[in-house]
Amino acid sequence: MCQLLGMNCNVPTDICFSFTGFQARGGATDVHSDGWGIAFFEGKGTRLFLDPLPSSTSPIAELVRHYPIRSTNVIAHIRKATQGSVGLENTHPFIRELWGRYWIFAHNGNLIDFSPALDGSFLPVGLTDSERAFCWLLQELRRRFGDRMPAQETLFAAIRDLTLEIARHGEFNFLLSQGDCLFAHASTRLSHIVRQAPFTQAHLMDQDVTVDFSDVTTPDDRVAVIATAPLTDNEAWETMPPGTLWWFAEGKVAGRYDTFPGPERKPT
Amino acid sequence: MCQLLGMNCNVPTDICFSFTGFQARGGATDVHSDGWGIAFFEGKGTRLFLDPLPSSTSPIAELVRHYPIRSTNVIAHIRKATQGSVGLENTHPFIRELWGRYWIFAHNGNLIDFSPALDGSFLPVGLTDSERAFCWLLQELRRRFGDRMPAQETLFAAIRDLTLEIARHGEFNFLLSQGDCLFAHASTRLSHIVRQAPFTQAHLMDQDVTVDFSDVTTPDDRVAVIATAPLTDNEAWETMPPGTLWWFAEGKVAGRYDTFPGPERKPT
Repeated sequence: MCQLLGMNCNVPTDICFSFTGFQARGGATDVHSDGWGIAFFEGKGTRLFLDPLPSSTSPIAELVRHYPIRSTNVIAHIRKATQGSVGLENTHPFIRELWGRYWIFAHNGNLIDFSPALDGSFLPVGLTDSERAFCWLLQELRRRFGDRMPAQETLFAAIRDLTLEIARHGEFNFLLSQGDCLFAHASTRLSHIVRQAPFTQAHLMDQDVTVDFSDVTTPDDRVAVIATAPLTDNEAWETMPPGTLWWFAEGKVAGRYDTFPGPERKPT
Repeated sequence: MCQLLGMNCNVPTDICFSFTGFQARGGATDVHSDGWGIAFFEGKGTRLFLDPLPSSTSPIAELVRHYPIRSTNVIAHIRKATQGSVGLENTHPFIRELWGRYWIFAHNGNLIDFSPALDGSFLPVGLTDSERAFCWLLQELRRRFGDRMPAQETLFAAIRDLTLEIARHGEFNFLLSQGDCLFAHASTRLSHIVRQAPFTQAHLMDQDVTVDFSDVTTPDDRVAVIATAPLTDNEAWETMPPGTLWWFAEGKVAGRYDTFPGPERKPT
């Protein structure tokens, strides 16, 4: 399996602190050593760093850890290969363009017998179940909404329907963003925290590093961090129940749906 | 205007030497300081590094210069903005997926009144004439060939037709690759060199750096380097005449067309 890290903020924020703990899990404090990647949205632009090397020893990960790129939406992934060999084309996050926006997607889990009909509008380059799911999801969004991106709330409802379809095939924890907001699906394991004033100290679980957020923030800053497992050991992370889809915008939870396959459920 | 750098090889090769000279042109030895980017194909996978900072001072450029990423097709670009503000979304090279392959594109020039009908299959994220041309080019390739990539030679002929259309609108030097081969259009200014055995020393024009390629190659290696202006001062670069489209494969010239707008011309 893999590990996910996401960040959604109301003002551009760097992810150096969280990434420091996350990076250690790629081969040092944990076993996810089959590559890693991170994508930063800066406005509509995207920077995507990918490396098939373990993140704990990757020179590119060292750069990301020390070079403060300020972003409102970030998605990172460290990989333990299940489907698809170790290689750049199978390294998450994946990128595509839809509606004149870049979309970024990373997945933790394993989809069994998921071979949807792809019409050619988005095709996988690698061999992972994850990229296949991403391509199908974008294809269906375009099919549903045509050439214009709908409002975030409408988009969120559509993503929920499509997530339900895919999640029937297995474990499907994912992070997805088009730069405006971040969608997170907890299929089996995902947690989040919203940091806002009054800011305090946080201490990493995977490395002995402490940051005092009150030194580096303004009172209006708000940052949501989403991770497979909590990154700090002195903050109250919220476990996201299995079968929930979350919409983060402006650094906080903007919506939530149940996504357990089964009878129709109402948003909670 | 901007500067282009491309590399096509028969075995994965690092571009550290050429990039060292190229990087200096982004704000140090030349004026192209409105961002830069470089894309590396490794098999079907792609790594794309983008930075809106000048390449001469960018920490990411420093990483690329010192971290030997071995690739068979590389496209790099340093920008002097003409259309579109300085920003990540307007930074070349651009990436899209078509036929389950990533496509990478970078442009040097300026297209006037180029507003083709885009059907939504590929839409620009930023505001450059360059990204618009790239999107239209991919749209027309898909329209022509459907869901499967044709043979390189067929693709080359189609790209020539589309280049002819776009080049009516102005200066259109470009580099384009889908990972198998590299297409280069000389609209006004482009040169190339093919390095092969017997390998000798090369000395950069923009920095006092020399490499002896015989130390770092095998007799079977072959590398084509394409650049807006020659990068070394002791090698015989070939000027690519204005109005020519080139197809590089396996580190050498595989084909060439005339593309001056006007009556039909035969390949030379």
